[in-house]
Amino acid sequence: MDIEQQPNFRQFDSYRWDGVAHLPYKEEGAAPFKAISRQVLFGEPALGCELRYFEMDAGGFSSLERHGHMHAVMILRGHGRCLVGEEVRTVGPFDLVTIPSWTWHQFRATEGEPLGFLCMVNAERDRPQLPTADELETLRRHPAIAAFLAS
Amino acid sequence: MDIEQQPNFRQFDSYRWDGVAHLPYKEEGAAPFKAISRQVLFGEPALGCELRYFEMDAGGFSSLERHGHMHAVMILRGHGRCLVGEEVRTVGPFDLVTIPSWTWHQFRATEGEPLGFLCMVNAERDRPQLPTADELETLRRHPAIAAFLAS
Repeated sequence: MDIEQQPNFRQFDSYRWDGVAHLPYKEEGAAPFKAISRQVLFGEPALGCELRYFEMDAGGFSSLERHGHMHAVMILRGHGRCLVGEEVRTVGPFDLVTIPSWTWHQFRATEGEPLGFLCMVNAERDRPQLPTADELETLRRHPAIAAFLAS
Repeated sequence: MDIEQQPNFRQFDSYRWDGVAHLPYKEEGAAPFKAISRQVLFGEPALGCELRYFEMDAGGFSSLERHGHMHAVMILRGHGRCLVGEEVRTVGPFDLVTIPSWTWHQFRATEGEPLGFLCMVNAERDRPQLPTADELETLRRHPAIAAFLAS
C-alpha cells in the first residue's frame, strides 16, 4: 500500500473509501477483541499523525488496553459504549472521546448496529499494554466497569 | 480556552460540541472568504496534530490559498465543490480530500446546504499564501477552475 501515491479525492461508499485497504484490527492472538476492522484514511509521513477508521460489528468490541500515546476519537457511525479510565459512557455519531496517556479504554458496539469511529494518533507511538489479572481485578471493583466488561 | 482541561467525553449536538469554542474562520481582512466558522476539536500538544471542524453556510467559501503544510480532510456534512491543484470535484459526506504541500485549494458549499468538514493538520505549520494577480490569471486559464472561482 503506497499511501503517498493516492489521489487527492477519494470517495466514500458504505464505510469504505477508494483505494483504502480494509485491514484486520490487529494480529490475531495479540489481545482479546471481536469483529473489528481498520482502515488507514490518512497516513502521510508529512502529517506526523494518522487518521484511522475502526469499525466493529454489532456486539463487537476493541481490546481493553492502555498506552503512553493519546487517542483522539470521533464516532462516525452507530452507537455503543466506551470505557475511558473509570468512566463508562454511551456514545453516538460525532461525539468526541479523548483517551489520555496510560488510561484503560475499550469500545463496545451495541447489539443492534455496528460502531465506527475515527481515531487520530501520532505517527510515532508505543505499543499497547494489556491489563494483568491484578489490574483487571482492580478495574472490576468499579460496578459500572464490571458491568461494562461483562456485557 | 484551556483545551488540556477538557473532559474525556464531549457530546455532539447540531454541529457543535460540548466545551468547544465556535470561532471565526480567520482574522477579518486576511483573505477573501465567506460565511465560515472553525471549531478546534482536538488540539492537545501531545498529539502533534490538530483536528478542526470548518463549516460554511450555503453559498459560503474558504479562501483560495496554498502553504507548505498538508491538509487531510474528511467531509462531515452537506455537499460542495473543492479545488485542489488543477482539479475541481464535487464532494459529499465522508469523502476524503488530500491537500498536498504548496497546492492551491478552496472549498465552496452548494447553494442549498452548509458544507462542513474535518481537517487534520500538523500542529507546527506555515502561514497560507494567497495568489498574486498573475497566479490567479494562470489558474483561470483552466476553464474548470475559472468556472469554479466565478461561482
